[in-house]
Amino acid sequence: MSRFVIIVAGGTGTRMRTKTAKQFLMIEGLPILWRTLRRFQQAVPDAPITLVLHESLFDEFRNLESHHGPSGATHLVKGGAERFHSVLAGLTSLPDEGLVAIHDAVRPFPSIELIRTAFDTAATHGSAIPSIPLKDSIRKISSSGSDSVSVNRSDFIAVQTPQCFDISLLKPAFAAPYSPAFTDDASVFEAAGHSITLCPGDPVNMKLTTPEDLIIARALLDR
Amino acid sequence: MSRFVIIVAGGTGTRMRTKTAKQFLMIEGLPILWRTLRRFQQAVPDAPITLVLHESLFDEFRNLESHHGPSGATHLVKGGAERFHSVLAGLTSLPDEGLVAIHDAVRPFPSIELIRTAFDTAATHGSAIPSIPLKDSIRKISSSGSDSVSVNRSDFIAVQTPQCFDISLLKPAFAAPYSPAFTDDASVFEAAGHSITLCPGDPVNMKLTTPEDLIIARALLDR
Repeated sequence: MSRFVIIVAGGTGTRMRTKTAKQFLMIEGLPILWRTLRRFQQAVPDAPITLVLHESLFDEFRNLESHHGPSGATHLVKGGAERFHSVLAGLTSLPDEGLVAIHDAVRPFPSIELIRTAFDTAATHGSAIPSIPLKDSIRKISSSGSDSVSVNRSDFIAVQTPQCFDISLLKPAFAAPYSPAFTDDASVFEAAGHSITLCPGDPVNMKLTTPEDLIIARALLDR
Repeated sequence: MSRFVIIVAGGTGTRMRTKTAKQFLMIEGLPILWRTLRRFQQAVPDAPITLVLHESLFDEFRNLESHHGPSGATHLVKGGAERFHSVLAGLTSLPDEGLVAIHDAVRPFPSIELIRTAFDTAATHGSAIPSIPLKDSIRKISSSGSDSVSVNRSDFIAVQTPQCFDISLLKPAFAAPYSPAFTDDASVFEAAGHSITLCPGDPVNMKLTTPEDLIIARALLDR
């Protein structure tokens, strides 16, 4: 089956406390987004890569391409209000069959093996969601937000991206109206009645969201 | 109220894939445990520090003290089978009144402010559990382990240590028989009918459990 990649770059840098959108921040001389895209080019060289980006960042993106060379994205698509709408915009640009990996722009360290395993798992089972055990204990907050209760950490897993899907199943799932319960792409797929298959994630495959994460990212690159 | 600290060093290094217990691994010339203890010495210089350690590691601990100087621990106590038993052993060495902060040995970066705020919150409310938002989406695993379902990440928080308590409430709570549902000290306190008060955690206050975490810890120290 043909393989496709959608990279979702929704952020505008609020949590990073910077003026630059976080996917454009530099680690060791290259924007984070460029590093993310290189992993996919290496893992699945045949797969076209659709980059979904807020329209206000198109100029900055092109400017960065003139400085750092092509990012590796083969298609550039306008993002929407929520992640759901951005992924939908990316999906609309794809054919109706094949496999798609949907990945966060600010997660630059998925291993080649992780990406390939996710595609292989989705080819067999229809979906593949990389997951890892939780490291910290967690508590559930009451609906009022004023109270919390202990839950068993081993009953939960943390999920990462790339989340891979059979496009012929995912596209109809994304025809549903938007719901705030759609916290990731797996939850949209699941709401359409499909079951989710897990595959191994990796603690290093982290999402960079705070200034400390950039320090950590540089250290991981240097190793 | 008098303040006390219990440092729990239960680990034997399995996840670190090393022969050295993880609390004894070095970052920038000093064992992790030494770095953890220094934070508490700085934040609450008046507080005695009880170190709970597996008995098989006592010799190695004393050997490290002869190389790196005193760790800062004022009392050394034998650990038990589970974290619950180790904390209980530490609590038994304390008086029946005051405030106690219970902290993971392999979490060397609690800020001075975080430690003091936790003590102050517990002085007013009886408990203080540092918490931060979840970074990744999470899924709940079915009891069989073969299936999982999406849950709303914003309904949950990740909890850290130091978890601080009023000793006059915590000691009776630890008189309960051990239950596997006791995933942290807050869950023991809660099972005794007390309510939990949250206070601000910090993403940098991470637990070091994998080899990559050591690389990250060195980078955070260098910043």
